[in-house]
Amino acid sequence: MNAAEAEWIAADWGTSNLRIWAMRGADMLEARGSDKGMGTLSGADQFAAELARLSEGWPSVPVLACGMVGARQGWIEAPYRAVPCPAIPALNAVPGDPGGRKVLIASGVMQSDPPDVMRGEETQIAGLLAAKPDFDGVICLPGTHTKWARISAGEIVHFQTVMTGEIFALLSRQSVLRHSLDGTGGEDDGTAFADAVATALSQPHQAWARLFRLRAAGLIGTANPAEASAHLSGTLIGLDLGAARPHWLGQQVLILGNSGLARLYETALTAQGAAPVVGDADTATRAGLLAAWRQQEDMT
Amino acid sequence: MNAAEAEWIAADWGTSNLRIWAMRGADMLEARGSDKGMGTLSGADQFAAELARLSEGWPSVPVLACGMVGARQGWIEAPYRAVPCPAIPALNAVPGDPGGRKVLIASGVMQSDPPDVMRGEETQIAGLLAAKPDFDGVICLPGTHTKWARISAGEIVHFQTVMTGEIFALLSRQSVLRHSLDGTGGEDDGTAFADAVATALSQPHQAWARLFRLRAAGLIGTANPAEASAHLSGTLIGLDLGAARPHWLGQQVLILGNSGLARLYETALTAQGAAPVVGDADTATRAGLLAAWRQQEDMT
Repeated sequence: MNAAEAEWIAADWGTSNLRIWAMRGADMLEARGSDKGMGTLSGADQFAAELARLSEGWPSVPVLACGMVGARQGWIEAPYRAVPCPAIPALNAVPGDPGGRKVLIASGVMQSDPPDVMRGEETQIAGLLAAKPDFDGVICLPGTHTKWARISAGEIVHFQTVMTGEIFALLSRQSVLRHSLDGTGGEDDGTAFADAVATALSQPHQAWARLFRLRAAGLIGTANPAEASAHLSGTLIGLDLGAARPHWLGQQVLILGNSGLARLYETALTAQGAAPVVGDADTATRAGLLAAWRQQEDMT
Repeated sequence: MNAAEAEWIAADWGTSNLRIWAMRGADMLEARGSDKGMGTLSGADQFAAELARLSEGWPSVPVLACGMVGARQGWIEAPYRAVPCPAIPALNAVPGDPGGRKVLIASGVMQSDPPDVMRGEETQIAGLLAAKPDFDGVICLPGTHTKWARISAGEIVHFQTVMTGEIFALLSRQSVLRHSLDGTGGEDDGTAFADAVATALSQPHQAWARLFRLRAAGLIGTANPAEASAHLSGTLIGLDLGAARPHWLGQQVLILGNSGLARLYETALTAQGAAPVVGDADTATRAGLLAAWRQQEDMT
């Protein structure tokens, strides 16, 4: 089978990237991507043009998209639903069938108390629950903004966002620490990573204050860039795990993601006695969009 | 008296700025400044030219400088001394008396275990100790990199650097939180600041994880930018105070600085039951350089 036989198109349209897949039921026929994320586009015409360009040659089948494309600054604003709610997103039609295709954008999820939001992760969670409908526990979605979502009876009950990935990027690229790191995500020194996670969990104030040591060690001649990167990464993930402990302690934990960052969360959680299962994020995105589409078809 | 009667010139030459003062003994006759910090200059000729330009018309008297001008990337590398050591810095001559003036640069202070460094703050501490030779306690120097220095018997015994100011700047200007803040240092909502300090001290993990709420509140329509800035500032200063608690708890605390940031440290420490005294940083810098010069004159 090739993309000419596609029945629908799945799209993961985030702030920085657009990825699309030609789909036949649950089968992926072809994948394409571009760096035209929501953050680089402005106005409905630009979104329509980029989708038409990237999907050129594919059939005029419906497009189902999730992510920041549904934000206020996106193509259309797809409203948030409030927790507790089913993970399967509602789909919101872009007016006018741009490019001759029906385009449907997934709603995000919000929480009032404490305030929190997600866009895209709800679709991944829905995809995971399509495969494991009885899952009861916490789903960790590592990333620029790591999400921890408590799942019970097929619903997102509560969630928490921590800015772990964004703060790692800022500190490692733009702070004075940039001179002391090796440019990795911190995966090359497992001992330093594990030590930093443990310190951040047991002595969070001290862990926080220790970051400048990474720079100072370089100035006094005792630098070790691989160790420093692992230390920074372990400190931030350890602080995150400490905050999320009520979510994961004694729970089933599922990590959605196959990035280096996801593997570091797996390592850190395992060291704390959790037994996380790891799932593929892109598979979950496509499965979540398919579940949303089927639900909509059933209702119409 | 005017600058023509100067006996020496004091210089605070940091990464971002140069400030010089025409001095007669301990009296300041004239102040000048430029934005030609160490970070903007490269090579001895550029340092010499900037000093000559800014001090034009002043007598050919010795120049005593402290700060990053003595770093490896500075004019000359002024070596670190290791703690425990007297706060009064050793002075290192720039070869060749550039511009016909003797130029002396203060040594920094280092600590091996844990690794830490300071350049400039040692001179401020020396100036403070010149006025209060019996001070025994901790000196807090708020800034891009806040320092906490334990002082006893006229010596710097131990110190700790926390990247509080730099991380506040990165998060408030370059992270997703920038959309949610009011552009201040967080001084306009005392209640939110005090609450965030207290939470960061008592529940550091939770405090850390709460930062994304400031953004989420804006997205779901409950934003309060002044409160958000105070919350971010209070969280970071509270984490810093938690790490430095062994230094300040039950000790005399002296804050050197008159910035808005210094006032926030004063507020936070006072709320925690400390009774900090606040001193002027520029006065301390000039007094510290004078003490270093007098010590050197005594020795020669």
